[in-house]
Amino acid sequence: MPARKTDRRSSSRRLEYIIIECVTPELDGGRYPVKRITGDTVIVGADLIKEGHDQLAARVLFRPPGDSEWSQSPMHFDYDRDRWYGAFTVDRIGRWSFTIEAWTDRFATWRAELRKKVDAGQEVQLELVEGAQLARAASRGTRSSAARASLLMTAKMLEDRRNTTIEKRIQRALDDDLLALMEEHARPNDLTRYRRELAITVDRERARFAAWYEMFPRSQIAPAVAKAAQRHGTFTDAAARLPRLADLGFDVVYLPPIHPIGETFRKGKNNSLTAEPGDVGSPWAIGNAHGGHTAIDPALGTIGDFDRFVATARDLGLEVALDYALQCSPDHPWVKEHPEWFHVRPDGSIKHAENPPKKYQDIVPINFWCDDRAALWNACRDVLRYWIEHGVKIFRVDNPHTKTFAFWEWVIHEVQREHPDVVFFAEAFTRPKRMKSLAKLGFTMSYTYFTWKNQWWELRDYLTELTQTAMVEYFRGNLFANTPDILNEYLVNGGRPAFRARLLLAGTLLPLYGIYSGFELCENVPVHPGSEEYLDSEKYQIRPRDYDAPENINADIRRLNEIRREVPALHWYDNLSFHTSENPTILFYRKAARAPLVQFPGSSPEPVPAEAAATLGLRPAAHGADVLVMVNTDPHHVQETMVHVPIHEMGLDDEQRYVVHDLLTGARYSWRGVRNYVRLDPAQQPGHLFVVER
Amino acid sequence: MPARKTDRRSSSRRLEYIIIECVTPELDGGRYPVKRITGDTVIVGADLIKEGHDQLAARVLFRPPGDSEWSQSPMHFDYDRDRWYGAFTVDRIGRWSFTIEAWTDRFATWRAELRKKVDAGQEVQLELVEGAQLARAASRGTRSSAARASLLMTAKMLEDRRNTTIEKRIQRALDDDLLALMEEHARPNDLTRYRRELAITVDRERARFAAWYEMFPRSQIAPAVAKAAQRHGTFTDAAARLPRLADLGFDVVYLPPIHPIGETFRKGKNNSLTAEPGDVGSPWAIGNAHGGHTAIDPALGTIGDFDRFVATARDLGLEVALDYALQCSPDHPWVKEHPEWFHVRPDGSIKHAENPPKKYQDIVPINFWCDDRAALWNACRDVLRYWIEHGVKIFRVDNPHTKTFAFWEWVIHEVQREHPDVVFFAEAFTRPKRMKSLAKLGFTMSYTYFTWKNQWWELRDYLTELTQTAMVEYFRGNLFANTPDILNEYLVNGGRPAFRARLLLAGTLLPLYGIYSGFELCENVPVHPGSEEYLDSEKYQIRPRDYDAPENINADIRRLNEIRREVPALHWYDNLSFHTSENPTILFYRKAARAPLVQFPGSSPEPVPAEAAATLGLRPAAHGADVLVMVNTDPHHVQETMVHVPIHEMGLDDEQRYVVHDLLTGARYSWRGVRNYVRLDPAQQPGHLFVVER
Repeated sequence: MPARKTDRRSSSRRLEYIIIECVTPELDGGRYPVKRITGDTVIVGADLIKEGHDQLAARVLFRPPGDSEWSQSPMHFDYDRDRWYGAFTVDRIGRWSFTIEAWTDRFATWRAELRKKVDAGQEVQLELVEGAQLARAASRGTRSSAARASLLMTAKMLEDRRNTTIEKRIQRALDDDLLALMEEHARPNDLTRYRRELAITVDRERARFAAWYEMFPRSQIAPAVAKAAQRHGTFTDAAARLPRLADLGFDVVYLPPIHPIGETFRKGKNNSLTAEPGDVGSPWAIGNAHGGHTAIDPALGTIGDFDRFVATARDLGLEVALDYALQCSPDHPWVKEHPEWFHVRPDGSIKHAENPPKKYQDIVPINFWCDDRAALWNACRDVLRYWIEHGVKIFRVDNPHTKTFAFWEWVIHEVQREHPDVVFFAEAFTRPKRMKSLAKLGFTMSYTYFTWKNQWWELRDYLTELTQTAMVEYFRGNLFANTPDILNEYLVNGGRPAFRARLLLAGTLLPLYGIYSGFELCENVPVHPGSEEYLDSEKYQIRPRDYDAPENINADIRRLNEIRREVPALHWYDNLSFHTSENPTILFYRKAARAPLVQFPGSSPEPVPAEAAATLGLRPAAHGADVLVMVNTDPHHVQETMVHVPIHEMGLDDEQRYVVHDLLTGARYSWRGVRNYVRLDPAQQPGHLFVVER
Repeated sequence: MPARKTDRRSSSRRLEYIIIECVTPELDGGRYPVKRITGDTVIVGADLIKEGHDQLAARVLFRPPGDSEWSQSPMHFDYDRDRWYGAFTVDRIGRWSFTIEAWTDRFATWRAELRKKVDAGQEVQLELVEGAQLARAASRGTRSSAARASLLMTAKMLEDRRNTTIEKRIQRALDDDLLALMEEHARPNDLTRYRRELAITVDRERARFAAWYEMFPRSQIAPAVAKAAQRHGTFTDAAARLPRLADLGFDVVYLPPIHPIGETFRKGKNNSLTAEPGDVGSPWAIGNAHGGHTAIDPALGTIGDFDRFVATARDLGLEVALDYALQCSPDHPWVKEHPEWFHVRPDGSIKHAENPPKKYQDIVPINFWCDDRAALWNACRDVLRYWIEHGVKIFRVDNPHTKTFAFWEWVIHEVQREHPDVVFFAEAFTRPKRMKSLAKLGFTMSYTYFTWKNQWWELRDYLTELTQTAMVEYFRGNLFANTPDILNEYLVNGGRPAFRARLLLAGTLLPLYGIYSGFELCENVPVHPGSEEYLDSEKYQIRPRDYDAPENINADIRRLNEIRREVPALHWYDNLSFHTSENPTILFYRKAARAPLVQFPGSSPEPVPAEAAATLGLRPAAHGADVLVMVNTDPHHVQETMVHVPIHEMGLDDEQRYVVHDLLTGARYSWRGVRNYVRLDPAQQPGHLFVVER
């Protein structure tokens, strides 16, 4: 093994005039980018360390995507925290870089000392000559001839004991104009650059705020038609559903795979191992004689139909998200054309998926480290390019944790280099560290454990982890209330009140949330008791629905999405905090009016102090009102509680009355002080969504 | 400015088969080494992330100082934490390196899947052929001809459908011997090395456990002799004091600068600006016609006298620490020989130290970034080399925060490369971040704010920060109870009981502590009320003392140092915890019997779980007994309290009786349960130092 001696390496380290450390935002020592949205102000923090009493100065260097030169922004010192802060706004999407430079402000140091000596009545003749030397050095460094002339004249004056009075010379030395001139033109002789360039992935707003709706296009056919015609829903049928989704206020329509479905070992209804004639199969078994990942299931229509579907959605303000499921049915064209991209067994057969002793013979996994890796990875990337050309900019990635992580980092970067507006959504239900890792290496947003968090303390703990730890720098949870794979027992047992409560939670806890169709109808019959699979799951058969069936919660959805768009506090990710509810079955949380500025040195949250924010010229912009949410997590019983409103954090006095306005019902209540009464009947109302009026 | 495009850089990143992250111990992304003591077991933790279900394997690679090859130690998986742990013991001093390698254990993965299929009664003919392929690949990779033969025979047998029964082939496939053979000889095809090599500075035990005593050699003369002879104490006088210090149980004797003292602007008694004839001056104003940093003040003796002093100390088991104060009096030889090493003013004069409007004309600071930097830094290093040749291996560094930090990193590394047993002790009383930075960049140990922490909550909070945060990885506090510069008002007001309490705190809170002479006599007269300076400070004059004067606390010191040596729990740094005392004026803390194994991913403490420790073969060695300390922080009044003993952490049941044995007085008390009574009269006893007997 190569043995680079540590001693040699350390000795050759470049000497640093100034130590620059604890830089934020920085993820895993700069290994991964942090994430932001266009328009965000990035607050950069750093500790600068130098011996003695010299005055330091520093700036943030930042480089927007595509620029080859650094831009810069000054840093300011926060005395109480012994820390420096700078800021810049990321005004376009793509990969930004930043770093920090620090140096000694020799002129300011000299000037401050001069002032103290003058104030103490000390002799300063020599000091003035030293000031002249500084001015002269600055004059040599500048390209501005006007500045050079002014600096040289100043230098002459400062050392001119004959013709200028000491008072005048001191006055010139302490002149604010001279300070400004020196700050602009003096070149530091100890400029120190932070040893790392850090990256920021800047996404469009849709990456942080969106309401998602998942639907199988093949089911988008009226039950009567389906029964009468015995036919499969098409893109044309699905397009006809889009106005309804736009009316409900969704932003993204996500389609499970739309490609030709394998015949070999096709799954039958309710996941049976043998398909009956006419069974449509699972769309995740991708590929047959009609094509693979860039083809369309003929039963759904043509690529032209798909293009029209996308166009219809766009016209309605909806964006289409596609599934990106990197696996193949045994009938996928790649299996014949590129058997080397799969795991070939000693008898020449292609290995199917398995988790011994279970076999998944309808699927063959891709061998990402095969000898023909470069061609395979390019082909996988080209699938994305194909759909991007057809107007798709959001990909929901199926089970990314079962594919090579290095591939994801590569392909996301490859695609976003050309198309920085492309969003990748990781569907990884796996161990926490793997989910975090996928988010770090590039996934724009991620599924979460939300479906399994139904008790108040689970919600409080989990959402606090998502929003109040270093995870906010890279992990954007999208709270799906259900999926085709997950029908939680809370919904099974709780019925309609449970669906309403979960909708309200999903749509207010985080700015990203979603439902899978059927949720609005409170569909909750599992394939067998205790299972999280639906009976007659749409994964294996067509499920036409009457979306206006009785007991639907369309009105809840429409109103929630309307409120979400209106209320800025529901657009931010890190402004969530939980507060005391004396009966915690009623969960109580606040979405703060102004997104707090948070920075994370290491992993401990460090809010930027008000002073620093002020120093940086960050206006405490009045971003709408505070939102207070109370949700009754018990779908069966009326619950009542006293909630403890964080009035001091909200800038309210103990005696001050304030009005809480329930945007769900329109009701207004006059509250005062910390403790206030709440009663929620699940049969009537899942919770309150209050904005605080003054 | 050079503009390396981020895009290009990221694309060319080496692909990683396995993600290795959150490695511990790692300080600031590997920028700085962590610290350990010889004999310590270093526990290495890491998260390993790979897609799918393959079994992983990993090892720690570590390299002792001077070795050019890596040694290795296996890592083990802790399922509950989803984390890998490995360990190695650092058995010699110097700079160690380590890193991590991970790979897929293809054979173990194949074997586990085979077993499941066999158990399920599935057909495994193809699987056995695949096993044969693995064995054959391993045979090609090994250098052992015996292993090669065995692996080839195995391969043949596994695929031999004709002559061997399926049962026998399966038996061979699942054979433990084969597993061991494969683990040893199979070469992974996805070996992934962590992207950083991390460093550990391993010091000798004295760097973590020592009792220090500071004395001015010139004062080590009996008061009567001093008065009669009107003479200056010498090394010979000082050597005569050493048996006393050895008897009191000290480990290190630290001497303020012993060099010739400047005449120009020499300070008089009590820091007066003008010295009277005969005034000896401050030893920190280094250098006169007799020499500089490598010379000895002639009044103290010769280098031969110094060598004899060091030898006497060594014979008594004491180690001598010298002051390393990098500044000069205006009379220092360097000022004439190398004026370019200082700040030269426009009139050719050398700039004296100042903090405007204050002037320190007896001192000229060194210009560490002067044009002749290389020669200057080498000269500063050679001062250390000189004293190392004279037997000094511990340097107390004066005000390192007023000198260039890059110099310290360089010089400590330069010296420790040749002499890894040299200890550097930072005397930096400055802002916390600077103190931490000095410790990170190489100082072995550091002064602390201990002298100013006198209230129970200050002690609890500060010591918790020192011992229970990431600081334990690099910052070793040495709790000096007083210094020539710091006579705290707590000692001024509290008198002898305060001195006894502070001694007990210093000597038990951390394994490193010290006192400056006079402490044992409870000297506490400030130069003026409210000042932290001593009246008639030894910094400016000779102070002969009768160390057996009435009211001395020699007996306390002797007993404390004796106990410290006997009780292992007092040798460790990170085993401190504070516990409830219902009257918190009596501070209650525990030094745990076994040093907990702690690791720090990022900055949050993560104790190694018992299972992992067991997996790693770490014996829970019975390192002596638990220590419980109660100190009455009120020097004026009797206090009583109920303390809450952490009996469950100590492995005691609620009903179990246990004996607490006060090593200070010899008294024994029989206690039971959590709450127990303590009463402390400061006039009698500053506190209890209990060992828990069973």
